[in-house]
Amino acid sequence: MNVELRHPARQRPERVKPAVIDCDIHPKAPLEALRPYLAKRWQDYLATYGVRSRHGFAKGYPYPKGTPQAARRDAWPPGGGLPGSDLELMRTQHLDHYGIEFGVMNPLSPSGQGEQNPDFSAALASAMNDWQIAAMSGPEPRLKASIIVPYEDGEAARAEIHKRAANRDYVQVFLLSRTAEALGRRRYWPIYEAAVEHGLPVGIHVFGYSGWAMTNTGWPSFYIEEMTEHATSSQALLTSFVMEGVFARYPELKIVLIESGFAWLPALGWRLDKIWKRLKDEVPHVTRAPSELIRQNVWVTTQPMEEPEDPDHLIEVMGWIGQDRILFASDYPHWDFDDPFLALPPTLDAEQRKRIFAGNARALYRFA
Amino acid sequence: MNVELRHPARQRPERVKPAVIDCDIHPKAPLEALRPYLAKRWQDYLATYGVRSRHGFAKGYPYPKGTPQAARRDAWPPGGGLPGSDLELMRTQHLDHYGIEFGVMNPLSPSGQGEQNPDFSAALASAMNDWQIAAMSGPEPRLKASIIVPYEDGEAARAEIHKRAANRDYVQVFLLSRTAEALGRRRYWPIYEAAVEHGLPVGIHVFGYSGWAMTNTGWPSFYIEEMTEHATSSQALLTSFVMEGVFARYPELKIVLIESGFAWLPALGWRLDKIWKRLKDEVPHVTRAPSELIRQNVWVTTQPMEEPEDPDHLIEVMGWIGQDRILFASDYPHWDFDDPFLALPPTLDAEQRKRIFAGNARALYRFA
Repeated sequence: MNVELRHPARQRPERVKPAVIDCDIHPKAPLEALRPYLAKRWQDYLATYGVRSRHGFAKGYPYPKGTPQAARRDAWPPGGGLPGSDLELMRTQHLDHYGIEFGVMNPLSPSGQGEQNPDFSAALASAMNDWQIAAMSGPEPRLKASIIVPYEDGEAARAEIHKRAANRDYVQVFLLSRTAEALGRRRYWPIYEAAVEHGLPVGIHVFGYSGWAMTNTGWPSFYIEEMTEHATSSQALLTSFVMEGVFARYPELKIVLIESGFAWLPALGWRLDKIWKRLKDEVPHVTRAPSELIRQNVWVTTQPMEEPEDPDHLIEVMGWIGQDRILFASDYPHWDFDDPFLALPPTLDAEQRKRIFAGNARALYRFA
Repeated sequence: MNVELRHPARQRPERVKPAVIDCDIHPKAPLEALRPYLAKRWQDYLATYGVRSRHGFAKGYPYPKGTPQAARRDAWPPGGGLPGSDLELMRTQHLDHYGIEFGVMNPLSPSGQGEQNPDFSAALASAMNDWQIAAMSGPEPRLKASIIVPYEDGEAARAEIHKRAANRDYVQVFLLSRTAEALGRRRYWPIYEAAVEHGLPVGIHVFGYSGWAMTNTGWPSFYIEEMTEHATSSQALLTSFVMEGVFARYPELKIVLIESGFAWLPALGWRLDKIWKRLKDEVPHVTRAPSELIRQNVWVTTQPMEEPEDPDHLIEVMGWIGQDRILFASDYPHWDFDDPFLALPPTLDAEQRKRIFAGNARALYRFA
């Protein structure tokens, strides 16, 4: 819904605003902004080697060039800088305009995630965690931070979670979906263990740096195929969580799928249940039906929601996942931003809207 | 539904049998059976080099070892040989027992598909096409053949289709899903062009030899994950067909997805339509909504069907795809065989059952 171009936010009429908690806001720290939070060693390293991410964009930049920074055109700060970097613009254009009660920040690059040098990955992630508080959550308490972790090194990620968790301005642990191995694998378990220990949800945002081709027939030709691939790779990711036994081992683990869509989830659950019933001796650690485990451990965000011809089909999908598991997300300031005024299907009743807009996130993230 | 173990076919009571056309029967030609159909040059080659498929099972055999040949235990011929190789057993155990009117044969290895040497790939495929008629369709007219093509070489595949199409015992062109590139890519277009020219559907059966990892996070740990991957890779495959413009270019092309499941199809259509509406300038050759193109060009088979908790959800899924697009398939003689007596959800009405069991296949394959 490319609404921001048709209806610029500032021209929209005032009406009663629902309480909204936005579970996907992308603040932007330019590399220079992170530099003060890096030790001298890493400042020097950065000057000499720069950022070297796992697939290094060798295959091309993952967003269309026509939307630089993948951003809404009106999100570029008039005073200069990148979309998501100007707190004042984020306040007026987004937080104030929509009456956002809380916004969960999910910083993408440069955040050290996917960086090949493991120690530099940890240093950059930690700098991004400092920056989120200093530049955003400190001056603007509506904005909550995510603990960026150098996820390819499980123990370093665990240490970063322990370091940050006492500060309640951090509300989740943050991962990307394209990882070196499937996220259910044991190398990532220290992350889940630490998240459960501190009662923090683990948000998994699509994109990342796996280094593997996007499909089992190689790289696709079109960006549209990459956008579709987020839904299929999220199916593989959840399958990995279930079959590796992560959900059975950590029943308290709360996984939030961000920007994956979710209409594919019931069909995945049906398929997994059917196969598991016949082949469960391969995974004796999975003692309950996959669909039960998914419903126990998984939350999803709305943006970008699938839009069936018949909106009732979306309500049925939400019913399968659980009405208490759907979280509103705008993806501000990116080009495929969802307007809170327009995002939810009109067939949802008032109670359902309240839960999706704020109630579910309030419970999950334990906002006061 | 592991029914063959609980209810051996021979003990099931007689009842009125519906007309059944089975769109996925796997005959088995041992390599020795193909040898007479190979030129001397390739017989010698086979003796010296053997079969060398694209990923060469370097990563392990793709079926569990406990079910050799991925077969039902009762499908091993008492007189010796491999499941699917004994026409007499196939007749009594399957065709006669279930009153199968026609069965579409989908031969898997050794069929030359995925063989690395392109000329040997073409020779083996051609031998398999000879064998199907000589050993199966000739003596048993209920069994119809698939034209096996050396798909990685588009022009060689086209030539094989031209060579076979006049013989109406061949009812479709046969591909596997894991190919060197996504099946929408131009290298495969000669196959679609020839199929359309002869009015033959193109069946795409899951499995194959892409050489790429199964997911964008590498190889999964468990066989269950590979079984799930068939559904996600089929989503990528259909996306490729749509976005590369194959369905727009060949509106008469009939694609049959075999053994992929199909409950994921509506969610894929919703997602593709939404993304396409916003990014269609990337694919100007795609001038109609992806979901319309999918409904124009795609058929699906039942085995293995997803089994929702609420069977009405499956009926809704079938309604989205089109009740005229669902084809019954048993997968005989494989372990995950679907029993025609038990496979369809009881909530389907009599008319729907008739179409799925036989009417849709009769129209698609133009059976008399």
